[in-house]
Amino acid sequence: MESISVGLLGLGTVGSGVVKVIQDHQDKLAHQIGCPVYVKKALVLDVNKERNLDLESGILTANPYDVIQDPEIDIVVEVMGGIESTKEYLVEALKQKKHIVTANKDLMAVHGPELLALASENQCDLFYEASVAGGIPILRSLVDGLSSDRITKMMGIVNGTTNYILTKMSKQGLSFDDVLAEAQRLGFAEADPSSDVDGIDAARKMAILSTLGFSMNVGLGDVKVSGIRQVAEEDLRYCDQLGYTMKLIGYAHRQGEKIEVSVEPTLLENSHPLSAVNDEYNAVYVYGEAVGETMFYGPGAGSLPTATAVVSDLVAIMKNMRLGVNGKSAVIPQFPKKLKDHSEIISKYFLRLHVEDEVGVLANITSIFSKHGVGFEKIMQNPVHEQRLAEVVLVTHQASLEAYENTLVELRDLGPIREVKSSYRVEGGK
Amino acid sequence: MESISVGLLGLGTVGSGVVKVIQDHQDKLAHQIGCPVYVKKALVLDVNKERNLDLESGILTANPYDVIQDPEIDIVVEVMGGIESTKEYLVEALKQKKHIVTANKDLMAVHGPELLALASENQCDLFYEASVAGGIPILRSLVDGLSSDRITKMMGIVNGTTNYILTKMSKQGLSFDDVLAEAQRLGFAEADPSSDVDGIDAARKMAILSTLGFSMNVGLGDVKVSGIRQVAEEDLRYCDQLGYTMKLIGYAHRQGEKIEVSVEPTLLENSHPLSAVNDEYNAVYVYGEAVGETMFYGPGAGSLPTATAVVSDLVAIMKNMRLGVNGKSAVIPQFPKKLKDHSEIISKYFLRLHVEDEVGVLANITSIFSKHGVGFEKIMQNPVHEQRLAEVVLVTHQASLEAYENTLVELRDLGPIREVKSSYRVEGGK
Repeated sequence: MESISVGLLGLGTVGSGVVKVIQDHQDKLAHQIGCPVYVKKALVLDVNKERNLDLESGILTANPYDVIQDPEIDIVVEVMGGIESTKEYLVEALKQKKHIVTANKDLMAVHGPELLALASENQCDLFYEASVAGGIPILRSLVDGLSSDRITKMMGIVNGTTNYILTKMSKQGLSFDDVLAEAQRLGFAEADPSSDVDGIDAARKMAILSTLGFSMNVGLGDVKVSGIRQVAEEDLRYCDQLGYTMKLIGYAHRQGEKIEVSVEPTLLENSHPLSAVNDEYNAVYVYGEAVGETMFYGPGAGSLPTATAVVSDLVAIMKNMRLGVNGKSAVIPQFPKKLKDHSEIISKYFLRLHVEDEVGVLANITSIFSKHGVGFEKIMQNPVHEQRLAEVVLVTHQASLEAYENTLVELRDLGPIREVKSSYRVEGGK
Repeated sequence: MESISVGLLGLGTVGSGVVKVIQDHQDKLAHQIGCPVYVKKALVLDVNKERNLDLESGILTANPYDVIQDPEIDIVVEVMGGIESTKEYLVEALKQKKHIVTANKDLMAVHGPELLALASENQCDLFYEASVAGGIPILRSLVDGLSSDRITKMMGIVNGTTNYILTKMSKQGLSFDDVLAEAQRLGFAEADPSSDVDGIDAARKMAILSTLGFSMNVGLGDVKVSGIRQVAEEDLRYCDQLGYTMKLIGYAHRQGEKIEVSVEPTLLENSHPLSAVNDEYNAVYVYGEAVGETMFYGPGAGSLPTATAVVSDLVAIMKNMRLGVNGKSAVIPQFPKKLKDHSEIISKYFLRLHVEDEVGVLANITSIFSKHGVGFEKIMQNPVHEQRLAEVVLVTHQASLEAYENTLVELRDLGPIREVKSSYRVEGGK
């Protein structure tokens, strides 16, 4: 090969980073691949927009088919986002025998299996390292680095915006609304932050991680999701007091043939390696039967970090091109998907209640817990100012989600209980 | 291929783990590779020794050539340790066209380039993921996951024994000798702990990491090494007081075309991700120009963790066998090795001195520092009990190693300075 031509679909934050990494690291890339690599075409919305990039004229186009049907383009890099129309472009690109790199977790969480099958059919590679945890090479670590092990648990801080918000709330004692507004001002959160703060973005990434780590086809619909909007300053104060750190944790666990996958605000023991992952950083904790505890830490987003993942995928494809072995690396899931039911999901829980401050309430509460076989690790009661109420905070022992939910239903019916203020999963103990 | 046959050189801690991982995860391995894999021969010292392994009869042999010359064996796994005679076996195995997996950092740090070249010549793979940081897939992350980036800094806690000792000393206020004795009792440190506590083991791993990360042939002789024997309880108390954590850090830094590689006890800012890596755990912090900060954390040793790295290498070789592309993945270093001189090595330093408790001493000390252009970030003086001495502790600003060494020479000559008690590098600030 004399050179390798890349076509970009999208030239926003990540696309610009890809152009820069290819240009700045051309020597290293050429040394590894054996020939130069260059960007031949890039799809943009507005070809006349001013850009801070050193691009030859004629590269920009507003027509996606100029990229995906260009016979000289070997690899299509999809960094435009979107789901349905983007999928159509990639299907066409694969039919044109183009290899694909995508950073699009939304697309992969929804249409991943179908696109990967089509890639194999066409002897094409389709890599998507950048779709999870930005610059952290976590997919490759699961597929290659830990290929010999049986992975039983993955816990991920895979959304930088929510980790930034929770870190600020914890460290500075601020409210969710205040920190979100600040994050939006600084560009760390989008104008419509729903996909981040409601946990959808993290859920998509956990679906991708679970599919690879557990070798089952896990989709977005299999992930139980709750976000961080309801996290109160009081919750974070109790966390601190009890030796926990609140994180939005993607939790994926396998037991026997069954799995559970969730994204929810979780109290992590401070001794857990993920509890020290702060600000906009991401990390994925992986537990394998043989290897034990590992963790992969790094930037989860950003132009250049995400671009390194995209271009590392490009390098992998280009090495495969040189060896003539494209389209052979996808592994078809080994197992049928089986989800745990609520009696099989085991965790500790943190619960904060407002109750009438009267004699015997605590005894009523504890008897409901013991009726459902749920024990406590910690319990405390404090007066609530302004009102004749008490705040009861407790952390349970390990219990099934079913038993815990039944307990909650009965608690909500108990007269003196005014309100269940908050309820979170607790993880990270040995 | 109907099946793949593996021969083991060595059946100790790691070798037994390899047998177990291959047996326990046979389904997953076969799913990925497309055929079963089994251990055909294993070299041991004593074929009659009782072993807690489920092995067919006839597998054990005391003759290495039964393994390396067996025409049916496809891959030789070297987990016996040793350097010169082990190298001869591997050379012979490569001539017999066997692919190789080794966990032997001593061998790779000394003869790596030569063995890798011989492997390429023979169209054989030679992988050595397990040689650095046990179960953490760090070599693959450098070579594949971060292939597109230009790595400028690597900091590693790559020796579990010394990290265990320093963690215990810090957290429990114990002396080096006491903790070492306890570690030896518990089997965390060897009877002759020199290679670990003097930093040699870590230096070998840093040579391997630097060779891959900087694409230069870095040998053990290029690594400046000092160990942890001289770390005093007082040093750890000051660390704690000043907001640092003491770690044995392998430090590899590239600036322009030049590099420095060292292993030394280092005071890390508590905000640095490596400062929370405790007990026998390992971690490698990697800074890339584009990706920024990443960290890879996990078990650095142990039977099953190290075995997962070995067997993941086996999987990579077996996938290459199926595709017919063995012997093509080694990348020849891109750059000639150039080491920084002491004027180019920049760091902060921690210094602890015992001085005569008399008027003007501090002024003398500070004037020597300023003469060499070395400023302070922190300085404090405390009385030393029993003697009429004062203890002076200081942390410098960034300075060249040359200027710092010249300062030390002059300080040692200063009359009122009784003793330079300790001097350490300080890292981790922004």
